[in-house]
Amino acid sequence: MANSKFEYVRNFEQADSLLPNTWIVVRIDGRAFTKMCAKYRFQKPNDRRALDLMNTAAKAVVTELSDTIIAYGVSDEYSFVFHKSSNLFERRASKLVSTVVSTFTANYVYSWSTYFPDAPLSPPLPTFDGRAVCYPTVQNLRDYLSWRQVDCHINNLYNTTFWSLIQLGGLDNKDAERTLAGSLAADKNEILFSRFHINYNNEPEIYKKGSVVFRHYELVDPNGHTVDTDTDADGLAEPIQQQSKSRAEKDRKKRAKARVVVEHMDMIKDDFWDRRPWILSNKPGKVPKEA
Amino acid sequence: MANSKFEYVRNFEQADSLLPNTWIVVRIDGRAFTKMCAKYRFQKPNDRRALDLMNTAAKAVVTELSDTIIAYGVSDEYSFVFHKSSNLFERRASKLVSTVVSTFTANYVYSWSTYFPDAPLSPPLPTFDGRAVCYPTVQNLRDYLSWRQVDCHINNLYNTTFWSLIQLGGLDNKDAERTLAGSLAADKNEILFSRFHINYNNEPEIYKKGSVVFRHYELVDPNGHTVDTDTDADGLAEPIQQQSKSRAEKDRKKRAKARVVVEHMDMIKDDFWDRRPWILSNKPGKVPKEA
Amino acid sequence: MANSKFEYVRNFEQADSLLPNTWIVVRIDGRAFTKMCAKYRFQKPNDRRALDLMNTAAKAVVTELSDTIIAYGVSDEYSFVFHKSSNLFERRASKLVSTVVSTFTANYVYSWSTYFPDAPLSPPLPTFDGRAVCYPTVQNLRDYLSWRQVDCHINNLYNTTFWSLIQLGGLDNKDAERTLAGSLAADKNEILFSRFHINYNNEPEIYKKGSVVFRHYELVDPNGHTVDTDTDADGLAEPIQQQSKSRAEKDRKKRAKARVVVEHMDMIKDDFWDRRPWILSNKPGKVPKEA
Amino acid sequence: MANSKFEYVRNFEQADSLLPNTWIVVRIDGRAFTKMCAKYRFQKPNDRRALDLMNTAAKAVVTELSDTIIAYGVSDEYSFVFHKSSNLFERRASKLVSTVVSTFTANYVYSWSTYFPDAPLSPPLPTFDGRAVCYPTVQNLRDYLSWRQVDCHINNLYNTTFWSLIQLGGLDNKDAERTLAGSLAADKNEILFSRFHINYNNEPEIYKKGSVVFRHYELVDPNGHTVDTDTDADGLAEPIQQQSKSRAEKDRKKRAKARVVVEHMDMIKDDFWDRRPWILSNKPGKVPKEA
Repeated sequence: MANSKFEYVRNFEQADSLLPNTWIVVRIDGRAFTKMCAKYRFQKPNDRRALDLMNTAAKAVVTELSDTIIAYGVSDEYSFVFHKSSNLFERRASKLVSTVVSTFTANYVYSWSTYFPDAPLSPPLPTFDGRAVCYPTVQNLRDYLSWRQVDCHINNLYNTTFWSLIQLGGLDNKDAERTLAGSLAADKNEILFSRFHINYNNEPEIYKKGSVVFRHYELVDPNGHTVDTDTDADGLAEPIQQQSKSRAEKDRKKRAKARVVVEHMDMIKDDFWDRRPWILSNKPGKVPKEA
Repeated sequence: MANSKFEYVRNFEQADSLLPNTWIVVRIDGRAFTKMCAKYRFQKPNDRRALDLMNTAAKAVVTELSDTIIAYGVSDEYSFVFHKSSNLFERRASKLVSTVVSTFTANYVYSWSTYFPDAPLSPPLPTFDGRAVCYPTVQNLRDYLSWRQVDCHINNLYNTTFWSLIQLGGLDNKDAERTLAGSLAADKNEILFSRFHINYNNEPEIYKKGSVVFRHYELVDPNGHTVDTDTDADGLAEPIQQQSKSRAEKDRKKRAKARVVVEHMDMIKDDFWDRRPWILSNKPGKVPKEA
Repeated sequence: MANSKFEYVRNFEQADSLLPNTWIVVRIDGRAFTKMCAKYRFQKPNDRRALDLMNTAAKAVVTELSDTIIAYGVSDEYSFVFHKSSNLFERRASKLVSTVVSTFTANYVYSWSTYFPDAPLSPPLPTFDGRAVCYPTVQNLRDYLSWRQVDCHINNLYNTTFWSLIQLGGLDNKDAERTLAGSLAADKNEILFSRFHINYNNEPEIYKKGSVVFRHYELVDPNGHTVDTDTDADGLAEPIQQQSKSRAEKDRKKRAKARVVVEHMDMIKDDFWDRRPWILSNKPGKVPKEA
Repeated sequence: MANSKFEYVRNFEQADSLLPNTWIVVRIDGRAFTKMCAKYRFQKPNDRRALDLMNTAAKAVVTELSDTIIAYGVSDEYSFVFHKSSNLFERRASKLVSTVVSTFTANYVYSWSTYFPDAPLSPPLPTFDGRAVCYPTVQNLRDYLSWRQVDCHINNLYNTTFWSLIQLGGLDNKDAERTLAGSLAADKNEILFSRFHINYNNEPEIYKKGSVVFRHYELVDPNGHTVDTDTDADGLAEPIQQQSKSRAEKDRKKRAKARVVVEHMDMIKDDFWDRRPWILSNKPGKVPKEA
């Protein structure tokens, strides 16, 4: 029985390759997580177990997809960045997005019981949707990550104050909302401190900064060292095809061996990037001795 | 701290809405399933547990996403069809694909231990990638599904014969390949019957036909009944927006209550569709009394 | 000197093929035609010479691009429809749009002096922009054309009344606008008739209906004849590739010889289409004897 | 008569905005120019009138679309570059391509008689198709332009030698082809010089280098001057929205007044760009006194 009669349907598939030489961000978001939070009684304003579970799933994605250079997570969302030189799945958007989402979801469900041993999953299960966005320059990419990290800060300060008013101050949701309407950051800090003796600065970094996932190598001294991402960062990148295949293969293997870490630190300032030139260059750094 | 400085990065996200009034097929495929099969010792040529697990995950997708009208699975792939009138996620390709893939993956991992109690999962976990394709006409859509079902038949006949030669005939892989090179369907049927007393027609339907997932209502007599998908099937569909919202809402609820079934039957002939007009019309049928 | 060092830039070109088996409409619009009208003193509310020039350019497009089945023009816009089976330029949107726009513009500029012998063109020259839209069903396509023709009617009734109030009634623009604010079609007919003795029904068809461009064959009696577009119109189209190449070639030649006509008639009712089955079937009809 | 019944068809139009912060190249190509060349007896290997006509049309495009920063033409093709910060037509591909193609075509047809007074146009008229491609970095953009200019050189050397063999050497086409098969640049130079006393270096620059169109300001000394495109060229571009609107408006006016010139010079080396920083910065330079 020949299949040729029907095979014409393959021609309906349409190309969705992402523009070459751009940084690809795949962002995933929890679907209906408000319900999830209620169903499994996530703590407010932050549930450490839920965040640790997100980070575990994100680490698996970064580890398995070695073209990801960095990931950033906050709340029920995570952004994965593919290096601009990546040709994974020929840069097809649907393959990139679906693979990230599937790997993340698989690990989230698989590791659930480690973090919530007393609250077994039941259908409908936690799921995530995703999308891919391209950024042409390092500045655009860093602005994207800064946008997410500033958002993390804004939301966490609000939520911390909001839930303090409720949990410690005895207000109901509406009164807490009303109290915070139009308030500035300084006002919220003041409410936390004067009413509840909470110094926001002392809150855990994971809540204030979110989580940054990347491969760990020896830090670089930004002053004593000619950071070799210069050529990559300046938009005058070498043509994609000119890196030798064997070199690319070697680098891939090095990256596969590198330790993937989860940190909670500022990515907005230059320092983070200056000391970790391998992230934007995608050239593996020195493996630390202690590792 | 204002976020406005960075928010411009949102403008880089690009629209990916699928053409209205077309049938959307989201097909997912197992990633690196050859390795998976080896790692968890899937039986050859078909592992019933693995197929049942696929079907369980697919049922969850069809149940949770009520705009899916039918799904078809074979081996490590599954196709989910959204009705041409669906406006789920405003028809954004990345949202549709990622949601299907995430829901499928979550259920696959979650239900794994039910079907493989003695082979616990370990990283790297099973994952799936996906893509969306639009089909403008019922004929194109049916040809797509026929294409997959014919493929199922062709592959299963080959694999059944191939593994019989090895498992029952004592050949090694190369000899089995050589034996089958250039053989026609009749040749394979003959090999199975004369050498191994296997009548291919008696093989389980799930292997020969794959799995069809849909909502179950009372079957319709194609002769005694004016099938009311006529208007939908003839390309002269009513404008999408003209169905009243309340009617749409009622239909959605009815669909949500309908029983989702997994069958192993021919979808290529008209009969399957004639007796189940609700699949293409997306108008819920009569709930069977026995249900 | 080898060019290979730079040739990688070709990879940045992205696919833009339009979905197969859908009707492609390329609509072009005059750019800055308000200025054009003033500069060359187009008559209000309709300038017959300008419309004839548009029609001449449109005829050239339909004649030169034999995959166009019909075109419809009103004011400074024109829509060109490519048959759903067309594979012209592999259905690449940019090629289709740019070729239509270029052919139209070339003919518009070339034929200008025929229609405006006393008003020679000077820079900036008249130009047009364009876009392509796909319609999956005949009904969608006909609704598109009906949309444009209804728009023609609505605008022409308004403009005819508006300019009568000014040219015959002595009102200024603002007063004319005010007079028509909120008026219904009946009100405008009444104003035309009672104030200016104009029976709108007697206005020239070209102004009321716009211009329809198509290949002319012998009309078909919709009752006495089994219209052979049935299979095409019902969404159950034959797979695209199944029409034989030689047949397609013959049809192309016949179409190339057919006379392209410009008519001003109703396309909204079925009659127009029933009597001209060749438009939607793309199978050339009988050449009329008188031709 | 309401139009609402049909207006749903507008929803079928799909977004085609090009990625922000990337350099947009719209390249147009003559359609069927081999026939055109024969019909109007263009001189071989280069027809100066035809090239001058192309350049006249290109100047009109650059002049009328002030977001174009440079254009490059060779033979029957022309590439127009829009600055990466351009938001013309909201960066919609079809609008950009169609407007460039239409403006070019209109001017080509309009100016034809100036360059070919003795060969009046007749249908089918000269037309062009077009496409848009995005380049993320200055280097990618310059590589694109270098690619076209190297192509110009390669083709012109070949064509000059080929036609010399025929026109001066008396060979027929096949023999000329055979003579050049596998020849290197040096071989062609040698043939030209030894057989026909032609020093290729003395050929007109317009044939060897093609035509570069840009706004003319006072040249900058690359050494004595800190070229202020640094920030733009290094990929660390300021967010697009941060340039003030009034500044943008002023710059637009300055650009509109600048003289658009056509030159035949090397764009591959840095010198061209270093001395004309306004091209990549899109900040108007100093208007030369002599202008």
